[in-house]
Amino acid sequence: MTDLSDFDTIREVAHALADAARAATLAHFRTPLSIESKGTAFDPVTRADREAEAAMRAILAERRPDDAILGEETGATTGTSGLTWVLDPIDGTRAFISGMPTWGVLIGLSDADGPRYGIVDQPFTGERFEGGPHGATWSRGGVTRPIGVRETARLSDATLLTTFPEVGTREEGASFARVSAACRLTRYGLDCYGYALVAAGHVDLVIEAGLQPYDVAAPIALIQAAGGVVTDWTGAPAHEGGRIVAAATPALHQAALKLLNG
Amino acid sequence: MTDLSDFDTIREVAHALADAARAATLAHFRTPLSIESKGTAFDPVTRADREAEAAMRAILAERRPDDAILGEETGATTGTSGLTWVLDPIDGTRAFISGMPTWGVLIGLSDADGPRYGIVDQPFTGERFEGGPHGATWSRGGVTRPIGVRETARLSDATLLTTFPEVGTREEGASFARVSAACRLTRYGLDCYGYALVAAGHVDLVIEAGLQPYDVAAPIALIQAAGGVVTDWTGAPAHEGGRIVAAATPALHQAALKLLNG
Repeated sequence: MTDLSDFDTIREVAHALADAARAATLAHFRTPLSIESKGTAFDPVTRADREAEAAMRAILAERRPDDAILGEETGATTGTSGLTWVLDPIDGTRAFISGMPTWGVLIGLSDADGPRYGIVDQPFTGERFEGGPHGATWSRGGVTRPIGVRETARLSDATLLTTFPEVGTREEGASFARVSAACRLTRYGLDCYGYALVAAGHVDLVIEAGLQPYDVAAPIALIQAAGGVVTDWTGAPAHEGGRIVAAATPALHQAALKLLNG
Repeated sequence: MTDLSDFDTIREVAHALADAARAATLAHFRTPLSIESKGTAFDPVTRADREAEAAMRAILAERRPDDAILGEETGATTGTSGLTWVLDPIDGTRAFISGMPTWGVLIGLSDADGPRYGIVDQPFTGERFEGGPHGATWSRGGVTRPIGVRETARLSDATLLTTFPEVGTREEGASFARVSAACRLTRYGLDCYGYALVAAGHVDLVIEAGLQPYDVAAPIALIQAAGGVVTDWTGAPAHEGGRIVAAATPALHQAALKLLNG
């Protein structure tokens, strides 16, 4: 693993990024937007997305010029430090354009072994979920509290979240349905906010498919710091995206994997 | 229609109810709850629900003793004024127990003709949506702004919301799917917050089934005050609950009804 000896600086920069993205996104939230399409009607890109990533990149260019950047909007910028900032300025653009308070700004920091640190920020509620070598915290309005996953061990006691009712392909959807049928409660439409709720101990399981690397870096770091487990559907590292299962406990993770592959 | 000549008092009392319910619900939000069941695993009742309704009933007993009350928790209390307070202390208990910020407190005031006034309050985000003879407003943190529906006339431009992916019965779900297929975007899991987003002009359409009278009174009053249309799936008044379609414009409402019954 890359040495994070300047971790205090890293956190300070990460919060500066989150503050900048919060201002840039809230400036456009719930205002009429001219939405451009990336090619499909269901992947809108907003000015907020671009302006928030530009604001974060400007801060990194000045304060962390040796780090690489992988951003949802502008792509990859190489670096020499071995560290990569993984940015998704608005995870949940559909929630954003619908006025829902469940999208988020994702700021991850990865090395060659995967995500080491992450922030999931919800600008409208003012919540910031942060996880890394220092632990995991939730903050809002100047109040910061430690957070951690809850101890749910059985699917029959678990609340399961996903972004879409139709998870990924038909086959992936069938796998999801097997887990959902075994869980106490399933809720939909959360985007990155669902991972934050796992880290904070309010729900137990997130299962998704078709994700990008910038969708998962910050959530993985956050949930791992909070004591949870995140892998792909085979149990392998998930930071390249794709099919994700995030669980509050190892027992729940194993139970979900078994049904996903059953 | 019943005379609302003391409307200023009514609004003042309604805000007192919402303030009391906000305190009672937030005291339990995101804390470990001992959840009792009403008979199914998917209709949990929380202490927050009961305490919020009790707090609201105590205020009404003192300040509006002649009005009737219909509450989700405690049922009906008769009155002599011709006005009925319709209370759902937590609409969206599943969202509540999952830590999501999309449940709400519903406070409606109806006469024999239907809902006349309503508040949809989201205690965690601090948002209060209010609609009645005075118009429709959104408020948060001391800021109050007028709100209104947006001018979407075609399903192909519309964002559609519903609480569940599986709307009502199989037949109701098939009707919903026809509308969803014609819309630009469909999102799930919003409960009463979806109606508030229609009133505030962020989304265009909510379609649900299996609702109770206390689920719909406040949303109907709010959306009508904001310029929208709410009926059941046949176009008849919806305040008894059941199958609901709430639309930003008459044109969108007609287009949705046609597909629901097609």
